[in-house]
Amino acid sequence: MATLGNSANIFWHECPVGQAERQKLLNQKGCVVWITGLSGSGKSTLACTLGRELHSRGHLSYVLDGDNLRHGLNKNLGFAPEDRTENIRRVGEVAKLFADAGLICIASLISPYRKDRDSCRALLPDANFIEVFMNMPLSLCEGRDPKGLYKLARAGKIKGFTGIDDPYEAPSNCEIELRQINGVCPAPSEMAGKVVSYLDGKGFLQA
Amino acid sequence: MATLGNSANIFWHECPVGQAERQKLLNQKGCVVWITGLSGSGKSTLACTLGRELHSRGHLSYVLDGDNLRHGLNKNLGFAPEDRTENIRRVGEVAKLFADAGLICIASLISPYRKDRDSCRALLPDANFIEVFMNMPLSLCEGRDPKGLYKLARAGKIKGFTGIDDPYEAPSNCEIELRQINGVCPAPSEMAGKVVSYLDGKGFLQA
Repeated sequence: MATLGNSANIFWHECPVGQAERQKLLNQKGCVVWITGLSGSGKSTLACTLGRELHSRGHLSYVLDGDNLRHGLNKNLGFAPEDRTENIRRVGEVAKLFADAGLICIASLISPYRKDRDSCRALLPDANFIEVFMNMPLSLCEGRDPKGLYKLARAGKIKGFTGIDDPYEAPSNCEIELRQINGVCPAPSEMAGKVVSYLDGKGFLQA
Repeated sequence: MATLGNSANIFWHECPVGQAERQKLLNQKGCVVWITGLSGSGKSTLACTLGRELHSRGHLSYVLDGDNLRHGLNKNLGFAPEDRTENIRRVGEVAKLFADAGLICIASLISPYRKDRDSCRALLPDANFIEVFMNMPLSLCEGRDPKGLYKLARAGKIKGFTGIDDPYEAPSNCEIELRQINGVCPAPSEMAGKVVSYLDGKGFLQA
């Protein structure tokens, strides 16, 4: 539309149906449940179980899965540091749109760097960003290795793999931490239940 | 996660709650209503009026506005040809996600090039992409000039402005065309009504 720069001559349109009205229609409040953790820590499993549990209670949620989005919105991004940051930024922006639409948006990404997660958090009112840390030991994740990626990373066939030769920065301010109890990983339904209880307690499951 | 290339070592997770179940919850079918036309042709007005009408009927819709998204998801894009294409591609991908979530997603963008619109259409089952062409004369749009952009373009202060020194490629295969009747532009409610009738007739307003 213009050559004057990125944000020149761009206007903001206020649309008459707002978030509050959509939330009333859905009888819930839009928010982002951001699940972070190592590959193999159970993020996708939790996301799916949580989505199922919310659906069974009549709530509308939607899962944004980091891997899946790399086939679509983020298919033009690789794994260089700036691409990883852009990958997470886009997911954060889309998650914000879903929350604005009134949905409980469940984002499931390794998202290893604190600053990238915090940038996504900053897009929303702080209370509407619920960071869930899958705090599972590397040994457990590597033992599961559901995609065979740790094996490739250990063999040097993948470089910059989180937990092996690239750091995972644990959250310092997450809303929910899920971890093993006495060396046993809680069942997915148990972990999902913890998130649902949190959402319920904070009033997200009603308008 | 990997350095082997863009799509290497990326897996697809099937999630247990699918589009059909969300649609049942919402009693509607997810789709994309893609509104295209010149600046000032009334895209945003139609998008808002349509969203209001759908809401009043108990349906969940969400407006993706090209201008608004340039403040968020697409804020790192300018107006060079490749940036415009990427801008539209991302909106198309996000619209697809919203349709998958079960919403009636209303995308409102000039989207002047046929190939860019057709790329977005190709992301969905063809019937689920409803292209709405705001076929208003340039003179009408320029006369309205709600953002003062035509004036700037005529003065040479904006280069590559659609309709002035950059082409608008009219759709050849749109589902709905809205135009003046006897030199009079239909009221927004009338235009929105036409879209609602289309959606209703095609079964999108029930699960």
